[in-house]
Amino acid sequence: MDPHRALDYARTRRAPFVSELKEFLRFPSVSSQPRRARDLKKCARWLARHLHRIGLERVKVIPTPGHPIVYASWLRAPGRPTLIIYGHYDVLPGEPLSEWRTPPFTPSLKNGNLYARGAADDKGQLFSHVKAIESYLRTQRALPVNVKCIFEGEEEIGSPHLTSFITRNQRALRADAAVISDTRMLAPDRPAISYAQRGGLRVELKISGSPHDLHSGNFGGAVLNPVQALCQMIARLHDAHGYIAIPGFYDDVRRWGEAERSFMARNGPTDEEILQDAQAQWDWGESGFTLYERTTIRPALTLNGITGGHQGPGSKSIIPASALAKLSFRLVPDQNPQKIAQLFRDHIARITPDAVRSSVQTFSPIEPALVDRNHPAVKAAALAYRKGFGSPPVFIRSGGSIPVVNTFQQILGCPAVLLGFGLPDDHIHAPNEKFHLPNFYQAIATSIWYLAVAARLRSAPRMQQTDWQSQ
Amino acid sequence: MDPHRALDYARTRRAPFVSELKEFLRFPSVSSQPRRARDLKKCARWLARHLHRIGLERVKVIPTPGHPIVYASWLRAPGRPTLIIYGHYDVLPGEPLSEWRTPPFTPSLKNGNLYARGAADDKGQLFSHVKAIESYLRTQRALPVNVKCIFEGEEEIGSPHLTSFITRNQRALRADAAVISDTRMLAPDRPAISYAQRGGLRVELKISGSPHDLHSGNFGGAVLNPVQALCQMIARLHDAHGYIAIPGFYDDVRRWGEAERSFMARNGPTDEEILQDAQAQWDWGESGFTLYERTTIRPALTLNGITGGHQGPGSKSIIPASALAKLSFRLVPDQNPQKIAQLFRDHIARITPDAVRSSVQTFSPIEPALVDRNHPAVKAAALAYRKGFGSPPVFIRSGGSIPVVNTFQQILGCPAVLLGFGLPDDHIHAPNEKFHLPNFYQAIATSIWYLAVAARLRSAPRMQQTDWQSQ
Repeated sequence: MDPHRALDYARTRRAPFVSELKEFLRFPSVSSQPRRARDLKKCARWLARHLHRIGLERVKVIPTPGHPIVYASWLRAPGRPTLIIYGHYDVLPGEPLSEWRTPPFTPSLKNGNLYARGAADDKGQLFSHVKAIESYLRTQRALPVNVKCIFEGEEEIGSPHLTSFITRNQRALRADAAVISDTRMLAPDRPAISYAQRGGLRVELKISGSPHDLHSGNFGGAVLNPVQALCQMIARLHDAHGYIAIPGFYDDVRRWGEAERSFMARNGPTDEEILQDAQAQWDWGESGFTLYERTTIRPALTLNGITGGHQGPGSKSIIPASALAKLSFRLVPDQNPQKIAQLFRDHIARITPDAVRSSVQTFSPIEPALVDRNHPAVKAAALAYRKGFGSPPVFIRSGGSIPVVNTFQQILGCPAVLLGFGLPDDHIHAPNEKFHLPNFYQAIATSIWYLAVAARLRSAPRMQQTDWQSQ
Repeated sequence: MDPHRALDYARTRRAPFVSELKEFLRFPSVSSQPRRARDLKKCARWLARHLHRIGLERVKVIPTPGHPIVYASWLRAPGRPTLIIYGHYDVLPGEPLSEWRTPPFTPSLKNGNLYARGAADDKGQLFSHVKAIESYLRTQRALPVNVKCIFEGEEEIGSPHLTSFITRNQRALRADAAVISDTRMLAPDRPAISYAQRGGLRVELKISGSPHDLHSGNFGGAVLNPVQALCQMIARLHDAHGYIAIPGFYDDVRRWGEAERSFMARNGPTDEEILQDAQAQWDWGESGFTLYERTTIRPALTLNGITGGHQGPGSKSIIPASALAKLSFRLVPDQNPQKIAQLFRDHIARITPDAVRSSVQTFSPIEPALVDRNHPAVKAAALAYRKGFGSPPVFIRSGGSIPVVNTFQQILGCPAVLLGFGLPDDHIHAPNEKFHLPNFYQAIATSIWYLAVAARLRSAPRMQQTDWQSQ
């Protein structure tokens, strides 16, 4: 197997690769919007046809109670290791549409960037591996290793059906490592391997007062306003120093030693870099920690949205009947999402004023995850990066959550290798998301190299003879 | 002039009166929604045609930079007093539509109530006077007094063009008293005359962080969340005892003596009645004051709405770029809306954290208003109520704001007589607004009596010879 022939193929095929990625990005595969369910199905079918066309085998669109999983494999390298390649074809909503310079589902090229919702998160990153596989299969009709592709359609809503799929197919999905490209590098010339992700928990907090809106003239000053009560309660979720003020919240937060913290300081972004990425002038949060630490080894509680009463233009003289906040926790080792959910409920019950009612719903518990950065499959990734990007990767922690990391590590027992190809200014989860095309090309090269280097890993025997079967 | 003949006519015409009111309520004359401008114009024209048909004269639809004013007069009672009859044909939005049992602009009769947006506020109340006038003109071709009807289309947005209209036509609009029916009674058998209204000031407070939404995984814990900052700032607008925590806010609040407070206690609703109207279990607000006092002689600051970040179903892992709250002050003598606006701006500037930016916009300043409850025109109203409803009215203060009261009193120098025909459970400014039909009938009778009783008031000479002329 000659990676150079694959690399040459990829180099000459850049224009069609970008066209195909644009096709992929045109599907508004927004997993959180029920009305988009058909678009997810169409996107999954398009992806499956594409995988079939480039020569992958056993291609399936596997239904789930939610959005389908696209599966494909190539297992014709007996005795060689088996890699899972994981990605997700679902995306976040495009809203607010008015803030996009070009429509989110009309991919647009400008200054070497491809703008579209999902361009970096995660269609572009996923597609880099697909194009690497194509480059081998088209030039040599074979891959250096066995691969099992798992592309899900529910990552942005917390992967509710992936774990049960993997658990049910535990034997069939056995692998030596799982490659996940859904993270970011530090800069175009600073590739990065993520070796830790924060866990998470989503929360909806609703405050209710009277059964209907009240006239603010008639009742203003005599009854508690649910919007005001909600704000006052939210104000009591943090203390004046940026710490989360929920009793017991920090009990299980792991304290990292000097060795790890100085490794982080050497490898991670500086405070200035993080502020610049955020286009923020001032930092905020737990004193005594760098911003990189605050966003990785420290937990966070974020208000994702708030709504109540009159919205839109003009005015309405009301005391709203209710108000709702959407919050999300980012959790770190050794916090447990279920325990945090209970602490939150207890705290809310304690701080809810008598004059209103509160209700709490929790969703998408995700455990924090850690990857052994000395595992051979991870070291192989570092080598591939050096070949693909011309620079060694830094090992960084991610502030976000990638539920599947734990799933692969705990259920399949294989390390998760997080090769990030996104950039800090890709505006993922925001208007004008983009994928930097030079990164796309170098990501393909890196994946080509990884498939080659991974071939030298010691494999568990006969791993490749198990495969997913419809049941 | 025989009020009994008018009363007989009104009694036999109840069914057509209700049908006509339904027609009037069908116009979605929502003054705060620019897309409804044509509906306001249509509604104004319908009303003008109606006034012409019942025999009023000099009927005009007078354009303003906003929505038109409908004017009509009848000035054929030389030597008799002149009354202004004021009402507004504009309404609040119907939203949230899902909470209406019948659509807001499809008037629906049920159990003696007519359900529609504007049924009580203010089309139904305004129409009671129109039907009283009709009852005289159809039976006797004359009214006991001169009348000048001013029906505006911008009350719900703070009457931005009414004052200049009245100022410009000060001479033409001279009158001995202005009758305003846009308030409520205490119960179906407890009519009420409002002798005080709170002033007001609307405020929009916007908090901005980064220029776009940030990924909450990447930045959660390191930058200040604008929604959180807004909530924390809102929490600092009240103290723990329900008082407004803006320095200087209470400086000009008039302290009422025991005489007025015990008059209020004898005549106003009890705490229990106010809580029952609000369908609230617990009161809230300034200790040391009854709920009636809190909503009338004490100021209030109400959150009318809040919005920021992800709304609607599902989740979005973002730190929102900005958040916005809509607030409104209710002000009391001797507070000045402009001074309060400045105190609010100063306070916000003081409490805005460094890490975000705040901006404040203020709208619709309204001065608090007081009416002399011993004025003969007010006493005449009490007599009319006794005849129309069979009970003497109580004299109460209103918590809401009726900007036109000050306009009439200050510019035209005539007392405002606030005959309320609404009920506390009419759900004005809320879904399922209604008008109680027995109140409609008794309101017409009360207006018929008022026109008769007012004929005995001493009139300023030749008041009726001035009238509005288009300019």
